[in-house]
Amino acid sequence: MTDLSAVKRSLASQAIETPSWAYGNSGTRFKVFAQPGVPRSPEEKIADAATVHKYTGVAPTVALHIPWDRVDDYGALTRYAEDLGVRIGAINTNVFQDDDYKLGSVTNPDPGIRRKATDHLLDAIGVMDATGSRDLKLWFSDGINYPGQDDLRERQDRLAAALRETYDRLGDEQRILLEYKLFEPAFYATDIPDWGTSYAHCVELGPKATVCIDTGHHAPGTNIEFIVAFLLRQNRLGAFDFNSRFYADDDLMVGAADPFQLFRIMYEIVRADALDPSYGIAFMLDQCHNIEQKIPAVIRSVMNVQEATAKALLVDRDALATAQRAGDVLEANAVLMDAYNTDVRPLLAEVRADAGLDPDPVGAYRRSGYQRRIEEERAEGAQAGWGA
Amino acid sequence: MTDLSAVKRSLASQAIETPSWAYGNSGTRFKVFAQPGVPRSPEEKIADAATVHKYTGVAPTVALHIPWDRVDDYGALTRYAEDLGVRIGAINTNVFQDDDYKLGSVTNPDPGIRRKATDHLLDAIGVMDATGSRDLKLWFSDGINYPGQDDLRERQDRLAAALRETYDRLGDEQRILLEYKLFEPAFYATDIPDWGTSYAHCVELGPKATVCIDTGHHAPGTNIEFIVAFLLRQNRLGAFDFNSRFYADDDLMVGAADPFQLFRIMYEIVRADALDPSYGIAFMLDQCHNIEQKIPAVIRSVMNVQEATAKALLVDRDALATAQRAGDVLEANAVLMDAYNTDVRPLLAEVRADAGLDPDPVGAYRRSGYQRRIEEERAEGAQAGWGA
Amino acid sequence: MTDLSAVKRSLASQAIETPSWAYGNSGTRFKVFAQPGVPRSPEEKIADAATVHKYTGVAPTVALHIPWDRVDDYGALTRYAEDLGVRIGAINTNVFQDDDYKLGSVTNPDPGIRRKATDHLLDAIGVMDATGSRDLKLWFSDGINYPGQDDLRERQDRLAAALRETYDRLGDEQRILLEYKLFEPAFYATDIPDWGTSYAHCVELGPKATVCIDTGHHAPGTNIEFIVAFLLRQNRLGAFDFNSRFYADDDLMVGAADPFQLFRIMYEIVRADALDPSYGIAFMLDQCHNIEQKIPAVIRSVMNVQEATAKALLVDRDALATAQRAGDVLEANAVLMDAYNTDVRPLLAEVRADAGLDPDPVGAYRRSGYQRRIEEERAEGAQAGWGA
Amino acid sequence: MTDLSAVKRSLASQAIETPSWAYGNSGTRFKVFAQPGVPRSPEEKIADAATVHKYTGVAPTVALHIPWDRVDDYGALTRYAEDLGVRIGAINTNVFQDDDYKLGSVTNPDPGIRRKATDHLLDAIGVMDATGSRDLKLWFSDGINYPGQDDLRERQDRLAAALRETYDRLGDEQRILLEYKLFEPAFYATDIPDWGTSYAHCVELGPKATVCIDTGHHAPGTNIEFIVAFLLRQNRLGAFDFNSRFYADDDLMVGAADPFQLFRIMYEIVRADALDPSYGIAFMLDQCHNIEQKIPAVIRSVMNVQEATAKALLVDRDALATAQRAGDVLEANAVLMDAYNTDVRPLLAEVRADAGLDPDPVGAYRRSGYQRRIEEERAEGAQAGWGA
Repeated sequence: MTDLSAVKRSLASQAIETPSWAYGNSGTRFKVFAQPGVPRSPEEKIADAATVHKYTGVAPTVALHIPWDRVDDYGALTRYAEDLGVRIGAINTNVFQDDDYKLGSVTNPDPGIRRKATDHLLDAIGVMDATGSRDLKLWFSDGINYPGQDDLRERQDRLAAALRETYDRLGDEQRILLEYKLFEPAFYATDIPDWGTSYAHCVELGPKATVCIDTGHHAPGTNIEFIVAFLLRQNRLGAFDFNSRFYADDDLMVGAADPFQLFRIMYEIVRADALDPSYGIAFMLDQCHNIEQKIPAVIRSVMNVQEATAKALLVDRDALATAQRAGDVLEANAVLMDAYNTDVRPLLAEVRADAGLDPDPVGAYRRSGYQRRIEEERAEGAQAGWGA
Repeated sequence: MTDLSAVKRSLASQAIETPSWAYGNSGTRFKVFAQPGVPRSPEEKIADAATVHKYTGVAPTVALHIPWDRVDDYGALTRYAEDLGVRIGAINTNVFQDDDYKLGSVTNPDPGIRRKATDHLLDAIGVMDATGSRDLKLWFSDGINYPGQDDLRERQDRLAAALRETYDRLGDEQRILLEYKLFEPAFYATDIPDWGTSYAHCVELGPKATVCIDTGHHAPGTNIEFIVAFLLRQNRLGAFDFNSRFYADDDLMVGAADPFQLFRIMYEIVRADALDPSYGIAFMLDQCHNIEQKIPAVIRSVMNVQEATAKALLVDRDALATAQRAGDVLEANAVLMDAYNTDVRPLLAEVRADAGLDPDPVGAYRRSGYQRRIEEERAEGAQAGWGA
Repeated sequence: MTDLSAVKRSLASQAIETPSWAYGNSGTRFKVFAQPGVPRSPEEKIADAATVHKYTGVAPTVALHIPWDRVDDYGALTRYAEDLGVRIGAINTNVFQDDDYKLGSVTNPDPGIRRKATDHLLDAIGVMDATGSRDLKLWFSDGINYPGQDDLRERQDRLAAALRETYDRLGDEQRILLEYKLFEPAFYATDIPDWGTSYAHCVELGPKATVCIDTGHHAPGTNIEFIVAFLLRQNRLGAFDFNSRFYADDDLMVGAADPFQLFRIMYEIVRADALDPSYGIAFMLDQCHNIEQKIPAVIRSVMNVQEATAKALLVDRDALATAQRAGDVLEANAVLMDAYNTDVRPLLAEVRADAGLDPDPVGAYRRSGYQRRIEEERAEGAQAGWGA
Repeated sequence: MTDLSAVKRSLASQAIETPSWAYGNSGTRFKVFAQPGVPRSPEEKIADAATVHKYTGVAPTVALHIPWDRVDDYGALTRYAEDLGVRIGAINTNVFQDDDYKLGSVTNPDPGIRRKATDHLLDAIGVMDATGSRDLKLWFSDGINYPGQDDLRERQDRLAAALRETYDRLGDEQRILLEYKLFEPAFYATDIPDWGTSYAHCVELGPKATVCIDTGHHAPGTNIEFIVAFLLRQNRLGAFDFNSRFYADDDLMVGAADPFQLFRIMYEIVRADALDPSYGIAFMLDQCHNIEQKIPAVIRSVMNVQEATAKALLVDRDALATAQRAGDVLEANAVLMDAYNTDVRPLLAEVRADAGLDPDPVGAYRRSGYQRRIEEERAEGAQAGWGA
């Protein structure tokens, strides 16, 4: 039997981080479609993130991307966020948009470019110091497009050296979240293509290095919840970048492509008692709202994670364990599906009402007038996007 | 026994079309890295294409992209090309970079936008009239990102209507090449995802509509040479967009990722006696040289197609047929592999020498000083790219 | 607004066909694990199918596989089925288990073997005549394992000839369901790898040839509901072979791997008003219950299709069309997801109760004692499997 | 400049292991096609393996599969092999064909079955002791078919326990080769799905545990040579199971599907100076010759590995390093492709002639009369296959 009040407590204390860049313009290599109301500054991005938190109650932090969110005074930015009710989350480094990085950043064959890239990582730790951020999220676009273009193994040596230097600069309460990605923008080989590569580097670095799973970064057919379960067992799961995909790194709203997969992922989290923020996993969104309105899309994404979590919490774990140990394949599957097939929207409406929130976050946002206001106030000036 | 002189004649008369946009800047959604010497105008792109033809002898036409290559006087552009020794090839339409096209072009739910998009297609036929181009190449980025976003079937009706109107505008010697693509930039469903969809529309349209196979537009595991063989049998193969890919639509140099696959594709062409330009298939490149120098990359790509073709021509078809009919699996495979394992570079060097060309096209280009000259002459001004 | 009583009527009249072979033993190339109670004859398979119908009310027909279900007197078999409350559904041909078929059946390079295979197809129409079956389901394992092994195009010619001869033998009320499959057991090229190939052959054959979609037979990333929508538009969708897969043709219980995909497929059916049996689509299961108990697995599968159908019927199509036409991406997606997120199990329990059935079919089966009885009664003798 | 005599020495001392089961019957779940002349005993399999070595000169060891190759006197079997000129290679364990293993072997929820499976692994070490074999190759079919069927994490605990017990039983000169596989026969989750899982277990076990890469066991798009390079860097690459695939674990002849990939893999081996048998990597074949004659298929496979190796040895590593360090993408790729495009068959013919072998191993085998002899001598009795 599931304890519903415990489920509601878990849901009430859940924390999902939204990324500053989700509020800016994004697109594909074919076209970036601009949207009205898009932020023009880090502050406006944070204001949008705070709005998402206001209506969902479970998005208390916002991730920054350096240099996209570079400011002169990070202390002021931090206070600005806090005044709006949110905190600064992970600091993301960007070592892929400078002309120097055409052939790589920390794995570039040119030692001068490697130095520049590594310095950027060290600078980002400075931003963490200034903002109180715990997490340095490292995603490298590094890789090669053609067989022979560079030496696969030497690039690992270069990567290891940069990671070591960065790791050694971390403060006691800081840590690295090391992301992997199968392909894009490098098309033949990326330098951290899979969780195994990230994991091996993390183990070599030390306990403050953990793996970040971006749900869109795998080969077709990869069982992501297995990776979740395995990394939890090894105590090396640090974070998620949530999004969803049908083909490649589509960066659609999490839960939009395969809600059952999201449920299975969250079940492994629940099963390991790793949902509570105190466990230390950062549950982040990393999405591109290319054609849909951004703030309600982020709200909807947060709700999708909540719904998957609620279903995972509703799994009757005693019944499941009994069926599993008995080797009753159909019954074990049925116990899991019972939870998945439950409509948890009424339960989440209650959780929101208990927290003094509108039970319908998207509706509340639409009724609030915020969207109209930002479209008016932000009509002038350069909109934020991936390049700024 | 293979008739070597016939092989050399076939190779000497081969024709590969290069695209104007391959000479401009390109990149990924993460970054476009500019390169020195990149063209600033359609004329400069044509000059680069003519240079590729100069050193390879088998790239006599250049495809244009409208509006990227829009000019006031297409007659003058055509004469400019001819003066440089090349002709205008396919006209490519671009209905994906206007803000109106965020939710689609000819399949957009808004009839006004559909009208605008279809008019663009009709205009492109006007460009064909002015340039003497035979082929209208249609690739639509149309599709949807989320289940439910639009009605899959109504979008087919809209697509069919736009294609019909366009088809009916074609002159007697003009035709449609209808491209398909599994995904990108639409991430849940594209309106022409596979060859079957393109084929069914072509059959409905009439004999002047044929399928264009882009070698990078398939799901993992798709057997492309089967599609080639099947469309040849149905008399509906109109063109190739050649490139290579490891994962998605990587648009790398053709032959760089899987040269054996390229050989198998060219074998089906040879086996159907469809290599000669008189057969009517347009063998085009469609690539992005994001990090490598563009002109030598195009030359190398043309050579890769030549090498695959030469190997395909060397297949001992009598021996192959004998082994196939006998059900001798190993021997039939061995006959094919014998041709593939042959080093055809000396043969192609001879073909080039016979045509009065340098046997080493890349080396000849490098020694020519062309690259240094364009880097100097094109230092100022706005470089061409996908957006211009 | 959805009309609930209409939804219930649709659900009550739904028909799902189960296959005789699902009740026999099956496995992988590594091992077939036998199960107690498995049928030893076509009659016992039909009895099991009738049991599934007894508890679900929506599985009134059973598909046969020839020669696995060969009997001397098909009239008697048909009456046997009718006495148990079910009818004979599609006749499946098996031209892959005779030693002659090592290199193919109707596409074999040996004309004698092609003759034998085609004769088997013609014989199967005789079984249809005797059983009153409407549908001849054709799946060919034909293909090649190695490049060069056989001629891709000649195999199409052979295939077309065999299909033509078979088609011409069909009675007025009979039809061909032509299945496609990407790979397995042929590993390099299959002769009908995708829906496009099947569709093109069907169009050439005539109106009595339609495509059968096996949901496990696609390349990774294929959008199956697009194919459903497209074939419905072309009036060429004849049947489904339902099952689910994570990787290849896993043949797991339908709805077990991606219930959201199943819902999207059923939505296209509902949207085209093609659910009712009178429309003519055969909704069949084609699954392997390798490790789970077979009869309850089939019941569970039937229920999964029912649940996906119920959700599809609950989609508010007016609201969806309004949002789609307005280009409101988030709202259109939300309308679809509202239906998907609904717990339809209470609704289906009502539908069953209205039909005089136990609202819990799996539970009712378990309580019935049928399983224990067949395990006792079928303890001796040779169990049915793929080979018999 | 490449030193040709060094290349020839490397090729002459190369060692490729063939598996006893490649000589027996194999097939798919649809059908096993028997072939004339197939061995009926471990001794006859070894005789066939010795024949492959006789004509290639580079296949000096044969892997056994327990219990398929179970004999009473392993010492006698070892001497029998030595008399024929070959040695016993890796011992493969089979814990997937007993009815007990339906839900897993070492990860089964039933502790009694886990005990039985682990005992089988320990017994296999006894076979190693008796045969002088160095390598215990562990592939587990363990996994689950349905979400919820069993607990992903507990299965890892069970796996770790069995591996630990097995590892601790190893002699000083013995080691574990731990294989991974994405799917099949388990269809939802396998217990060692990828190299990362295998690697993590090996690191926990100790230095005598290394990863075995089966080239057919990856998700689509996986860059296998990256894994090779990475594991070499971590000093954890123990073995290859070579075969080739277009889609899943097709187990076709190595080099038949993507010879360029095989070359890239062998280049990473050569680049790490890991080709020589003294380095310790076991280069094994693991293939199914379902439709082609088995012994010449194995010979052809050995030759394919030789050809890929020869090309890898011919890479001008100085020129490659120079181009890589200069960031010359096209030149670096061209250096690699120069080696790949070389026809190495004459070079290998020389290597064979130098070793006193026929330069054409397949032809020599065909002329030898061995095939006719085994077809006559082995006409009676039960042929060996996967089940015996």
